[in-house]
Amino acid sequence: YPRAMQVFRSFGAQLLSVPWDATGPRAEVFERLLERHTPKLFYCQPSAHNPTGLAVAPETARRLLDAAARHQVPIVEDGFDGSLFYGAAPTLPLKAVDRGGVVIYIGTFSKILFPGLRLGWLVGPPPILERLQAAKQLADLHTSALIQAAVHRFCERKLLDRHATRVATEYARRRALLLTALRRRMPSEVTWTEPQGGFSLLVTLPSGVDAGALLPQAIERGVAFAPGAPFFVDGGGQRTLRLSFSSVAANRIDEGIRRLAETIKAARGRLRGRERVERGAVPVV
Amino acid sequence: YPRAMQVFRSFGAQLLSVPWDATGPRAEVFERLLERHTPKLFYCQPSAHNPTGLAVAPETARRLLDAAARHQVPIVEDGFDGSLFYGAAPTLPLKAVDRGGVVIYIGTFSKILFPGLRLGWLVGPPPILERLQAAKQLADLHTSALIQAAVHRFCERKLLDRHATRVATEYARRRALLLTALRRRMPSEVTWTEPQGGFSLLVTLPSGVDAGALLPQAIERGVAFAPGAPFFVDGGGQRTLRLSFSSVAANRIDEGIRRLAETIKAARGRLRGRERVERGAVPVV
Repeated sequence: YPRAMQVFRSFGAQLLSVPWDATGPRAEVFERLLERHTPKLFYCQPSAHNPTGLAVAPETARRLLDAAARHQVPIVEDGFDGSLFYGAAPTLPLKAVDRGGVVIYIGTFSKILFPGLRLGWLVGPPPILERLQAAKQLADLHTSALIQAAVHRFCERKLLDRHATRVATEYARRRALLLTALRRRMPSEVTWTEPQGGFSLLVTLPSGVDAGALLPQAIERGVAFAPGAPFFVDGGGQRTLRLSFSSVAANRIDEGIRRLAETIKAARGRLRGRERVERGAVPVV
Repeated sequence: YPRAMQVFRSFGAQLLSVPWDATGPRAEVFERLLERHTPKLFYCQPSAHNPTGLAVAPETARRLLDAAARHQVPIVEDGFDGSLFYGAAPTLPLKAVDRGGVVIYIGTFSKILFPGLRLGWLVGPPPILERLQAAKQLADLHTSALIQAAVHRFCERKLLDRHATRVATEYARRRALLLTALRRRMPSEVTWTEPQGGFSLLVTLPSGVDAGALLPQAIERGVAFAPGAPFFVDGGGQRTLRLSFSSVAANRIDEGIRRLAETIKAARGRLRGRERVERGAVPVV
C-alpha cells in the first residue's frame, strides 16, 4: 500500500520487502530477513492484500506468526477491507490466531462504509495501545466524537451487518463479471490475480509493455487503471496494473475490459513492429 | 494552553515564556527574546487568551507583528474561542493586521459548536500551508469528509451565525454573573482578570494560598476549578486558578462562588493561625 510506505519512509525507515506467492508473504524470505536484520516491525495486509486481493493461507500465517514471536518483531496487520471476502468463509485475521501477542491489528470503517469517514480501530497488547494512545493525544487529541457516536449507533442498530452483507453481494457480482471479462477479452500473455477479498486485483502485462506508458493510451480509449509500480517496495511492478471493481457499475465492466484489452493489443503490436525494425537495422558484418 | 506546551515539548522544544500584562504579551520581553534566542515560532492566543480571557490591544499587536517580521519568526495564532467576545466589537486577529505575512492562524469549530467535533482551519502563507498539508497527509491522510460536509452545510445555511449569536449572548450573561459574584463574595486580597473573550478567567489567590492544595477543600464544599499552574510555561501560577463560565448554569454561578470564597477564607484563616503559631515559636534571645 503506497501510503503506508510513504509514512514509513517519512520517519526514515529503510523498507525491506517480502514477496507474495499464492499463499501469502513468502515465509522463508521473512525468516531470512528477520535473521539478517533487526526490523522494527512487519507490515502486511493478510486478509485482502492491496492490490492483489489475495489472502494468507493458514499454514503461512502460522509460520509468519511463529517467526515474528521468535524474533519478538511486532506484526502490524492492516485489516484494510478484510470485511469483504469472496470465499466460503472469511480469512481469519492473523490477530485471531496470534498466540505470541505480536500482532497489532488495524481496522477501518472507511472501506465498508464510505471513503472519507476516517474512523478505525486497533487491537493490540495493552502496553502498546497505551503508548499509541499517548501519541494520538499529541497528534490530534482524539478522533471526532460525533463520527464515533454516529458509527457506534450505526453498529448498535445492526445496520453495519446489513450494509456489509449487501456490499459483499454486490462486489462479489462485480468481481465475477471482471474475472469473466478478463478471461474472455485479454490476450493470452496477460495474467491476473483472483481476489479472495477487498476490491481490486493485479494484472500483469506481456513482457515489454509498461503500465505507466499504457495509461494515457488507455485513457484515450476511455478506460483507466492504477499503475502497479507504486505498490512495489523496491522498484519493479512496471508491467503490473491495479483494477478496482468496487466503484464501477456492473454493466460497464465488460466494455472497460474490452477497451483495455484493445489498448494492450495495440501496444504489443507497436512493440513487435519496433522489434522487427530494430532487428532489421542490425548491420550485417 | 497546557496541551500546546505538551505537544511542543514532545518534539523536544525548549519553551520560553512571554508574560502578559493587561494589553497582551509584553512586547519588550518578546523583542528581547527574539534578539537573544532564535526561536522557531511564537505561539499565542491573542483574541481570547486561555485562561485569562484577555485580548491583545492593537498597539501591542502591531509591536509583536513588527518584531516577528523583523526577525522572520512565524507567529502561530491560536484563535481558540476568539468567536466569543464581550466588548463592543470583536478583537481583530493578529492575522487580520499581518502585513509581513508572518502569522499562521489556527481556528477551530470545537469551541463554538461543541467539544469533540475536532474540526478546524488554518490561514497562512501558501508555502507553509503546502508543507502542513503534506505533514497532515502523512499523519492521518485527511480529516473526516463527513464532519467537514456537515459543518459546511451548517455554515452555508447561516446556522453557525445564528448559533454564535445565541451562544455569545448566553455566555455574556454568565460572565456578568460570575464577575458580580466575585466582586460580592471574594475577600479583598483575591483578584481576577476580566475576560474580553472566550469562556474563562484567571483568579489570583491571597499570598500563601496554593490553588492545588485548595482544590480538594473546594470539592468538599461542592465546587471545583482548574488550578492555574499547568498554564504557566516555567513554573509559577501556584496561587492562580481558572474559572470557566460556559458550562455552568446561570443560576448556580453565585452559589459556586460563595462556596469558593468560603473555602479561600477558611484556608487563609488556617494560614494566619499557623503564622501566629510560628511567630510565637521564635525563641527570644
